[in-house]
Amino acid sequence: MKVLALLPCILILLISPLRAADPLPSWQDTAPKHAIVAFVEKVTRPGSPDFVPVSERIATFDNDGTLWSEQPLYFQNFFIFSRIKALAPQHPEWTNQEPFSLVLKGDLNAAANCNLQGQLALIMATQAGLTVEEYQQAVTDWLATARHPQNGKLYTEMTFQPMLELLNYLRANGFKTYIVSGGGMDFIRPWAEKAYGIPPEQVIGTSIKTQFEMRDSKPVIMGLPAIDLVTDNVGKPVGIQTYIGRRPIASFGNSDGDLQMMQWTVAGSGPRFCLYVHHTDAVREWAYDRQSPIGHFEKGLDEALAKGWTVASMKDDWKIIYVADKK
Amino acid sequence: MKVLALLPCILILLISPLRAADPLPSWQDTAPKHAIVAFVEKVTRPGSPDFVPVSERIATFDNDGTLWSEQPLYFQNFFIFSRIKALAPQHPEWTNQEPFSLVLKGDLNAAANCNLQGQLALIMATQAGLTVEEYQQAVTDWLATARHPQNGKLYTEMTFQPMLELLNYLRANGFKTYIVSGGGMDFIRPWAEKAYGIPPEQVIGTSIKTQFEMRDSKPVIMGLPAIDLVTDNVGKPVGIQTYIGRRPIASFGNSDGDLQMMQWTVAGSGPRFCLYVHHTDAVREWAYDRQSPIGHFEKGLDEALAKGWTVASMKDDWKIIYVADKK
Repeated sequence: MKVLALLPCILILLISPLRAADPLPSWQDTAPKHAIVAFVEKVTRPGSPDFVPVSERIATFDNDGTLWSEQPLYFQNFFIFSRIKALAPQHPEWTNQEPFSLVLKGDLNAAANCNLQGQLALIMATQAGLTVEEYQQAVTDWLATARHPQNGKLYTEMTFQPMLELLNYLRANGFKTYIVSGGGMDFIRPWAEKAYGIPPEQVIGTSIKTQFEMRDSKPVIMGLPAIDLVTDNVGKPVGIQTYIGRRPIASFGNSDGDLQMMQWTVAGSGPRFCLYVHHTDAVREWAYDRQSPIGHFEKGLDEALAKGWTVASMKDDWKIIYVADKK
Repeated sequence: MKVLALLPCILILLISPLRAADPLPSWQDTAPKHAIVAFVEKVTRPGSPDFVPVSERIATFDNDGTLWSEQPLYFQNFFIFSRIKALAPQHPEWTNQEPFSLVLKGDLNAAANCNLQGQLALIMATQAGLTVEEYQQAVTDWLATARHPQNGKLYTEMTFQPMLELLNYLRANGFKTYIVSGGGMDFIRPWAEKAYGIPPEQVIGTSIKTQFEMRDSKPVIMGLPAIDLVTDNVGKPVGIQTYIGRRPIASFGNSDGDLQMMQWTVAGSGPRFCLYVHHTDAVREWAYDRQSPIGHFEKGLDEALAKGWTVASMKDDWKIIYVADKK
């Protein structure tokens, strides 16, 4: 068979939206699903006035509360607390030093909700002094066995099945999918490819400074006790510009921390799409928004309603919640 | 035709090295070309003990001196000097302040070879206070008309044809090709996709800090007068780890500034490939190595020879030099 004869078929395969089967089976047949499909179809239809070339089909996703749960604390905090406890014998000074003392006393809520400076101190204490590879291995080891304190699931079983379908649907339509998380970049990179199909080079997150050094004649990248970039709130568009250098045409989040990412997304020309996941399901997940310290969703909700962005209610718009619940 | 019936053919197309035509016609039939092809064939051959999955086929390229020329000064310096001259009326203090005064007096060699602090001061003076979009537009506008002071070519005509073929060959074999340059990230991003087929998200370079702000109710990313990351020497592996999060399996450079990138590359397990472009052609390009302040190539050359890395002589191994010279 002549290879060239296949080219038209290959091109059709590459550019056609998937129509054969429902690409979003865990989404109810309600407005958010319709809005997603309508957007994808218009930006991928050749000849459409809204057509967007493949190279510009960039979609950015928050992680905590958008791709997996974030209650009662960000899951990264459970990892940090477990490392703080393990490292405590080497740090007697932590007994009287907040936020470390809060962790050691078991007041996890207070530790998790300390100010940004305290949170960054916790991150640096658990990450600096390790090579990036060592830190990522510690994350991988922890995720293999750690379980959620309330439902006993592995944390990677608490990724959202409808969002996984959405990621796959976008990629099947030529989108490059990125995580842009306020959480740690090196906390997410080790497992995002397996969990979400998102490779490390498409995971942007809060990072510490690192340096190249020789250890026993072997080059390593060593974590330093200094924050590099905090990719939450106003840091999300900065992270997007720095790492991607293109403006997304679609963004997905769940809290006020994602608002600037969405503002940056919609301020570009041409078709744009923003979707907020609204945590409305106290039975199958959690219900929270304007009053919650974690995933605080107030300015973002008001702006989404005012601007007509899509808001997906987990209770009303998702048939199932977790990847682990899929039959 | 059933779409599924095409799948085996598509897979073969995706994974086979290009064998039909010579993918590297501007390379002489000498050792460097043989080494490149042998490496690509072994890492892409299914069942080979050296097979590397597509997701791990990361190749990193220096820019100045590796993908385009860098003499008599880094081309970015010509851009910076033109901006300094344009901005000088607003900065009377520059008349007595090095390195600005050197530029204004026309002592471009001294200005270009000032210390790192001076170079960073020049970069910040020409980039801070502009939005990223404004800065990139200024680069685009300058490149459209500025010409090399010695040969009169547009700078983008001075990209290396053999390296362009190499980039295409690697990509046709499933590699993701990155630029990791000591030059400015936002100086290279506006034109790398057209010149090299490398999209902005695969251009890593020296960067200044930026911030998100609202200007006339419109979000912008504004350049700040502070360096973020210098991606030369030890900064190259740091940039690679930060932006890509995977170790390259192949690296390409031309100077000591690329040595740590190569050390980081070869320290991984499995097949690895490093190639140095050696500037040996005083007639068609320039000849320089151990004595040159720009593109200084001494430790890198010694280590390449000691370790058996590939060294390509522009004089002996390249049939033509510039994209502009291609018939």
